[in-house]
Amino acid sequence: MTVELARGDLHASVSDPESAAMNFLNEVAARFPDAISLAAGRPYDGFHTTDDLDRYLHSYLAHLEGLGLTPEQRQRQLLQYGRTNGHLGALIARMLVVDEGIEVPERAVMVTSGCQEALVVALRGLCAGPGDVVLAVEPCYVGLTGAARLLGVEVVPVPESADGLDPETVARVAAAVRAAGRRPRALYVVPSFANPSGTSMPVAARRRLLDVAAEADLLILEDDPYGLFGLDDQPRPTLKALDTGQRVLYLGSFAKSCFPGARVGFLVADQTVVGADGTRSLLAEELSTVKSLLTVNTSPVAQAVIGGILVEAGCSLRAVGKEKTAFYRHNLRTLLAALTTSFAGDPRVRWNAPAGGFFAVLDVPLTADEAMLERSGRDYGVLWTPMSFFYGPGSGERPGGGGRRAIRLSCSALAPERIGEGVRRLAALVRDRGDPR
Amino acid sequence: MTVELARGDLHASVSDPESAAMNFLNEVAARFPDAISLAAGRPYDGFHTTDDLDRYLHSYLAHLEGLGLTPEQRQRQLLQYGRTNGHLGALIARMLVVDEGIEVPERAVMVTSGCQEALVVALRGLCAGPGDVVLAVEPCYVGLTGAARLLGVEVVPVPESADGLDPETVARVAAAVRAAGRRPRALYVVPSFANPSGTSMPVAARRRLLDVAAEADLLILEDDPYGLFGLDDQPRPTLKALDTGQRVLYLGSFAKSCFPGARVGFLVADQTVVGADGTRSLLAEELSTVKSLLTVNTSPVAQAVIGGILVEAGCSLRAVGKEKTAFYRHNLRTLLAALTTSFAGDPRVRWNAPAGGFFAVLDVPLTADEAMLERSGRDYGVLWTPMSFFYGPGSGERPGGGGRRAIRLSCSALAPERIGEGVRRLAALVRDRGDPR
Repeated sequence: MTVELARGDLHASVSDPESAAMNFLNEVAARFPDAISLAAGRPYDGFHTTDDLDRYLHSYLAHLEGLGLTPEQRQRQLLQYGRTNGHLGALIARMLVVDEGIEVPERAVMVTSGCQEALVVALRGLCAGPGDVVLAVEPCYVGLTGAARLLGVEVVPVPESADGLDPETVARVAAAVRAAGRRPRALYVVPSFANPSGTSMPVAARRRLLDVAAEADLLILEDDPYGLFGLDDQPRPTLKALDTGQRVLYLGSFAKSCFPGARVGFLVADQTVVGADGTRSLLAEELSTVKSLLTVNTSPVAQAVIGGILVEAGCSLRAVGKEKTAFYRHNLRTLLAALTTSFAGDPRVRWNAPAGGFFAVLDVPLTADEAMLERSGRDYGVLWTPMSFFYGPGSGERPGGGGRRAIRLSCSALAPERIGEGVRRLAALVRDRGDPR
Repeated sequence: MTVELARGDLHASVSDPESAAMNFLNEVAARFPDAISLAAGRPYDGFHTTDDLDRYLHSYLAHLEGLGLTPEQRQRQLLQYGRTNGHLGALIARMLVVDEGIEVPERAVMVTSGCQEALVVALRGLCAGPGDVVLAVEPCYVGLTGAARLLGVEVVPVPESADGLDPETVARVAAAVRAAGRRPRALYVVPSFANPSGTSMPVAARRRLLDVAAEADLLILEDDPYGLFGLDDQPRPTLKALDTGQRVLYLGSFAKSCFPGARVGFLVADQTVVGADGTRSLLAEELSTVKSLLTVNTSPVAQAVIGGILVEAGCSLRAVGKEKTAFYRHNLRTLLAALTTSFAGDPRVRWNAPAGGFFAVLDVPLTADEAMLERSGRDYGVLWTPMSFFYGPGSGERPGGGGRRAIRLSCSALAPERIGEGVRRLAALVRDRGDPR
């Protein structure tokens, strides 16, 4: 007798609907390899090569030598179990000062196995009981909603406007949650060049959001993977840089600024935690227990690779990332220009004009569901992401809402010369399959 | 107004008692750096050096080239986001055949960010609702009980005998759980050279345990970090090697067989999962959703380092690990001999004689609590681990049970010449602080 398990008997997160949607996307992409993918949001290949890895490792080892570590200590740092919160705290704290004007002590930094683990750690640590919920911008990055499902934490959506999250809406949703006897523990938001919507919050709204968070006794989970990639050099302070009251946990990723294969991200949590005995520590230190129960610590070898990049960059990814920034700017401008070329004058089609990042949203005169995506890949040779993937189950019921007639376009992974052709193929789909003009 | 959070307001796993205990242990170790640590269970430093890392990476890249991957594909494999379940499936499946006689398809293998993540993935996927509990050998490795606490999964202890887990006790506990209306979903066990107790299950008991698991409709989580380190070359089949009915999920670690700093482990789950629509897949494939929500995928750079070691070893860590095996054998024999020298003839002191691994347990005529450990470090210059750390909260109430008068001794991290002196210091503690003869 061999074991057969019913899928329905496994935990709900195994059948996570957004993960299933992403799997579907990957399958469609695999089935139509010649389609141009305006779906893939991964960074462009080609800013780093495996030849660099040795050098990064050696740069980091030389850095450790400069700090006075003996050969034995250097070996141990890379090859043994290590400190739960990692050994890049000082370099990351320095980077945050140089690149973002964020000043935090190095012990407020936890290095994580990618930013996804930082989400899990933060949600798990903050949401203590069944009444603790997390508010999240909607449409929402699927990593956040998935992490919440994994932990059994309820997500309460806060609908986004064209200018990103509206602080007054946050206040209203938080009050409603409290009125229902639950505790809104934190708010998840991507203030700059959001995934999936591409929106950014104006600086005044950022300041106001911090006030609202203080009034509603909310913490903010600020996810900032795209902050380096603005279309212009205008400074866009992160919430954490504006945060004088320690309302913000800052979630960082090296996947876009360095490369994804290191799987190194980080969490900044400089809030004070007071124990029943009066002992005081920082939230990042307290959360180290959660981190240790997930992955013990982040691969010190992977940390050393990222450490080497930071050391070589003088702790400024903004400085060394100019080539990347220029690439992504060019791609986003190319995408927006191609949309104008293909759709200007068509009142059925509208799109937003993100100020940076990897994504834009197109409202289309057709139901942008999985069947349409499959047809698009097969008959038109172009892939995109249904925006409905980024809405909770309730939201799809709203008339015209829930992203059912909208698609996310990504321009990060493509060579720029492919973008115009991708948009032309999309225009053919809309022409043939859209509602009549 | 800056934020102050009450520790009691954070999730229970933040204040995980076993993690707190381990933190205490680390603090004591830091305060008494000259003490000989019979507490540290980490592998010995010195089997690998950072100089090897480049070579491992290049060996793996050469392997990929041999498989026909283009330079672009090789770059992408190491530097991009990758397949959720990792890219070492084929090498690990081969290793399992060569070293353990375990035959599983490569798609039954999930590469994880250390074995701890494999524990979290397995528990999360299998325990779907509040009635689903996991049985676990007691005394138990703290990573399992901590992972369960993180996920809100209840752990039901199954007390261990001198020969490890007794299958009939498992049957009895599983029946009691079912009688209480709950579902015993899985059983956690380390059949060979357990942490913390050092015990091993006889082969007949292993076979019987598989029958019991089938009868009770239990899956088995077999954790096997120490399997290479038997005192003799006698074959000790893993449960997975004996498992004809796919009752066993096998959890592997490269921390001891290679080195901890890669943070690469793996999960083998070849059980068939059937969806409501009749679609069939393997459990490892289904669990990839859970893995993706924890860490997206395991650092491909770290995977490549371990991949290089496997390639160089012809996929046999048993073959290349002879130096390690000899080292740990010598250390364990030295420890057992030192115990005989120091304690033979003292009827108050008893210890077990593990057939391999890193640990032994000593029953002592004193309360082996944190205060005694601190005194031991300060006044006697020797550290050890209270066995009470490995028992659940209820177990400490049993008279003389719960490990209150027992200590775990580890001999893995020490140079062999320090072990005898460590045991002599321990004997002085027992002489001065133990109950009268």
